[in-house]
Amino acid sequence: MTKTTSGNFFEDFRLGQKITHATPRTVTTGDVALYNALYGSRFPVQSSDAFAYAIGYPRAPLDDLLVFHIVFGKTVPDISLNAVANLGYADCRFLHAVYPGDTLTAVSEVIGLKENSSRKTGVVYVRSTGFKQDGAKVLEYVRWVMVRKRDEAAVAPGDHVPQLPKSVEPATLGPACPQIALRSYDFALAGSPHRFEAYEVGEKIDHVDGMALEEAEHQLATRLYQNTARVHFNLFAQAKDRFGRRLVYGGVVISLARALSFNGLANAFHIAAINGGRHVAPMFAGATVFAWSQVLAKADLPGRTDVGALRLRTIATKDKPCADFPLKEGDADDPAVILDLDYWVLMPR
Amino acid sequence: MTKTTSGNFFEDFRLGQKITHATPRTVTTGDVALYNALYGSRFPVQSSDAFAYAIGYPRAPLDDLLVFHIVFGKTVPDISLNAVANLGYADCRFLHAVYPGDTLTAVSEVIGLKENSSRKTGVVYVRSTGFKQDGAKVLEYVRWVMVRKRDEAAVAPGDHVPQLPKSVEPATLGPACPQIALRSYDFALAGSPHRFEAYEVGEKIDHVDGMALEEAEHQLATRLYQNTARVHFNLFAQAKDRFGRRLVYGGVVISLARALSFNGLANAFHIAAINGGRHVAPMFAGATVFAWSQVLAKADLPGRTDVGALRLRTIATKDKPCADFPLKEGDADDPAVILDLDYWVLMPR
Amino acid sequence: MTKTTSGNFFEDFRLGQKITHATPRTVTTGDVALYNALYGSRFPVQSSDAFAYAIGYPRAPLDDLLVFHIVFGKTVPDISLNAVANLGYADCRFLHAVYPGDTLTAVSEVIGLKENSSRKTGVVYVRSTGFKQDGAKVLEYVRWVMVRKRDEAAVAPGDHVPQLPKSVEPATLGPACPQIALRSYDFALAGSPHRFEAYEVGEKIDHVDGMALEEAEHQLATRLYQNTARVHFNLFAQAKDRFGRRLVYGGVVISLARALSFNGLANAFHIAAINGGRHVAPMFAGATVFAWSQVLAKADLPGRTDVGALRLRTIATKDKPCADFPLKEGDADDPAVILDLDYWVLMPR
Repeated sequence: MTKTTSGNFFEDFRLGQKITHATPRTVTTGDVALYNALYGSRFPVQSSDAFAYAIGYPRAPLDDLLVFHIVFGKTVPDISLNAVANLGYADCRFLHAVYPGDTLTAVSEVIGLKENSSRKTGVVYVRSTGFKQDGAKVLEYVRWVMVRKRDEAAVAPGDHVPQLPKSVEPATLGPACPQIALRSYDFALAGSPHRFEAYEVGEKIDHVDGMALEEAEHQLATRLYQNTARVHFNLFAQAKDRFGRRLVYGGVVISLARALSFNGLANAFHIAAINGGRHVAPMFAGATVFAWSQVLAKADLPGRTDVGALRLRTIATKDKPCADFPLKEGDADDPAVILDLDYWVLMPR
Repeated sequence: MTKTTSGNFFEDFRLGQKITHATPRTVTTGDVALYNALYGSRFPVQSSDAFAYAIGYPRAPLDDLLVFHIVFGKTVPDISLNAVANLGYADCRFLHAVYPGDTLTAVSEVIGLKENSSRKTGVVYVRSTGFKQDGAKVLEYVRWVMVRKRDEAAVAPGDHVPQLPKSVEPATLGPACPQIALRSYDFALAGSPHRFEAYEVGEKIDHVDGMALEEAEHQLATRLYQNTARVHFNLFAQAKDRFGRRLVYGGVVISLARALSFNGLANAFHIAAINGGRHVAPMFAGATVFAWSQVLAKADLPGRTDVGALRLRTIATKDKPCADFPLKEGDADDPAVILDLDYWVLMPR
Repeated sequence: MTKTTSGNFFEDFRLGQKITHATPRTVTTGDVALYNALYGSRFPVQSSDAFAYAIGYPRAPLDDLLVFHIVFGKTVPDISLNAVANLGYADCRFLHAVYPGDTLTAVSEVIGLKENSSRKTGVVYVRSTGFKQDGAKVLEYVRWVMVRKRDEAAVAPGDHVPQLPKSVEPATLGPACPQIALRSYDFALAGSPHRFEAYEVGEKIDHVDGMALEEAEHQLATRLYQNTARVHFNLFAQAKDRFGRRLVYGGVVISLARALSFNGLANAFHIAAINGGRHVAPMFAGATVFAWSQVLAKADLPGRTDVGALRLRTIATKDKPCADFPLKEGDADDPAVILDLDYWVLMPR
């Protein structure tokens, strides 16, 4: 009877279920300009057609995270409209570069379901895949999310927790990155002389700069991704909820941290994979985001001498500069920490 | 002597007067991206070149309301800079799809003038027309607006109230919509299985979601349309005025309501006409907009079996969810209602 | 050891030093749309491909100030990250029109150094040049900025104050402006009948309108230009600083004043040069910007009968309408004045 969607509840999901998400989206240089205005990203491959072309791309590709957010946004109305919390990401790989003019669509498969002991909620695991108009996969990732039940008495729709890799295998990295013409990679234009070889495992980098976030900014960003989660927009409802205000979409924090990381990682021009991520604490408008990173590992890419992979852990904080690398207070998370992201980037060798 | 425009006053208008408006405007994918970021629209025809092409468009057309706002914006410096209130719209028809790269211009004709009994103001009726660079009409509408007199003693420039249709004739709908290839219309990608046939006259739909609005957002939107009305921007002057703050351009509310209406009307991919509209109460930043719709009528389009027309009444509210379809409190308007819009949309059959 | 840039201090500069700035930037119609949304500019040459083409451009060029801000933004990480104050501009000439698709880079040469008597700071003079992908110069300007020393005891790196012209020679104006086909310049579409000949030296013009500025707006603008100066973004640090809040990038005020100046100068379609400029007082979000202009001089362009040059002084204020042309209070600056800009514009004859 009703034509209005109120989203899926835990008992609506089925193991193995495949969901085609609305709305297909052609990405453009307009999206790129907005992404720049929202985060101030300075990585040259995504900023300059000329730079990208010189090193082997047909033109500047979209920022990897812009692609991620658009694909993620499509999954929200079907997967997480009734979510209590976004619990984690795993096994996220960027498979194909995306250019202005490409059209993105997304499909998810339910790969795990686990009711919580309260019987009020359950955890849904989905593998979501983004496609281009020609059917090529551009992105694949797993996320799990705690979803409300419509009816506590409803029977749990399954009970299976998938095995997920702790990190993406380096041997699988790089399909979205063409062979890089190193002689044409201009390190002065890129903003830093530091290549892959200059980074050491264990090294910590304070990204120094801080970026304040306004309500209008995170709303513009989240709508750009056609992400409809009500917690980001419905001030009327949020004002009565536990936080009393709108929550910032976690992807905004990821993009801010990535943009800040340019100062120290200027040549980390491509995110090849996300091993895992945790939104440690909620972010609200009005706070200033800072970030630091640690090199967790380094890896060669099979058969490639142009680029190497750094495994990074980037920590973002709110209202706390990162000169002393805040992370824990005793056994607990430092209350200023809002993001703990584990990912692979590619750098020229 | 002065080179500064302070706009036309009531006594400056003449019946039959034609006004060519500044500034011509080339619309681009940049405008589309901003429109998406401002409202979060999800209708697939406007979002995806691939979807639009599959069903019969050369590529994704601009959102109808983006075209409306840009044409409307051009008329402001000549028609409504000295307006007290925008009283109504009628007979608005979308005549030609607009694509990125098109350049829009606007012309208005004064079709009615009626001084108010106070002799301080008068009502100006204009028929405004938007054109593409090749001279094709893209949009035509009537609006009437109460305009101040510069000089109370000035003689009224005319006294004629035009006859306006209560609604646009269904037989005239659809010139901006190509023949739709229904077999290529993907209802899963579109986000809803509900076609024209699924809607019944009288049916009410709560669009559920709420969207808060920030000062920066409505200013960005209104400037994007090159709409210069001072009430939206001049905080210094507005702070001393009756509301004490900036007024939100009514078109922002229309676009928010339209974007919200996706939840329940996902396949209403084209606004073919606006029969009438009333900004019931002013909107200010900080409020959350909700909306509901009622199907007023259904109509076939002569000679077309691809699409049908729904006549909708969409009500937008501020800070009031619409589960119980707020409209009136006794004989008066519900104080939460800010928009009452009557329009025709096209849906696949 | 550290891979993080904390910017150059006064003692790091050398006379004659040339600095290649990161990050190359391809400008697009997305940037144009955002620029429109941020300032509401209405000059038809930059707004309409059709208008621009009719008078002699291949298509609508980017707003001159958008080009200026992008080039300026690139210089910030190397020149002014440790600046106390941006002291002035001189000898700024626009040399080549920039179109969507062009890629901009920037280089600076240190042309002057002067330590202050406190030995805590020094003034750095740089000539910065913006280039297109084909090597053509698009923009050249001098600015000088007071920069902190890292170490008070450090020896001053030089002592030379360059000779700078009070204004740009009219004979050198116009290389970025093609021959204008006056018969195709539509003054109705342009929004004003007033040509070059209509303006008199000494004439003052109140631009009437006022535009409020939000934090989100100046942050979006400044990031769009990839300008990383912390005073615009780092609320956490600024809250503890002398102003207690974020400073608005001075270029935002210049763009707002230019957009407001359309009302009175609608046919001043191209900024050919900036003779000098002073940010008289800091701007903060929440204030409303007004502007007025005075014609300082008029000049012919050698060998050209299509356009003439007006030398303008545009004054911007905050929270003070400009009907009585505010400038001084006794010998001091009127406390409402925030910008005093001296520049050349071209107008059709």
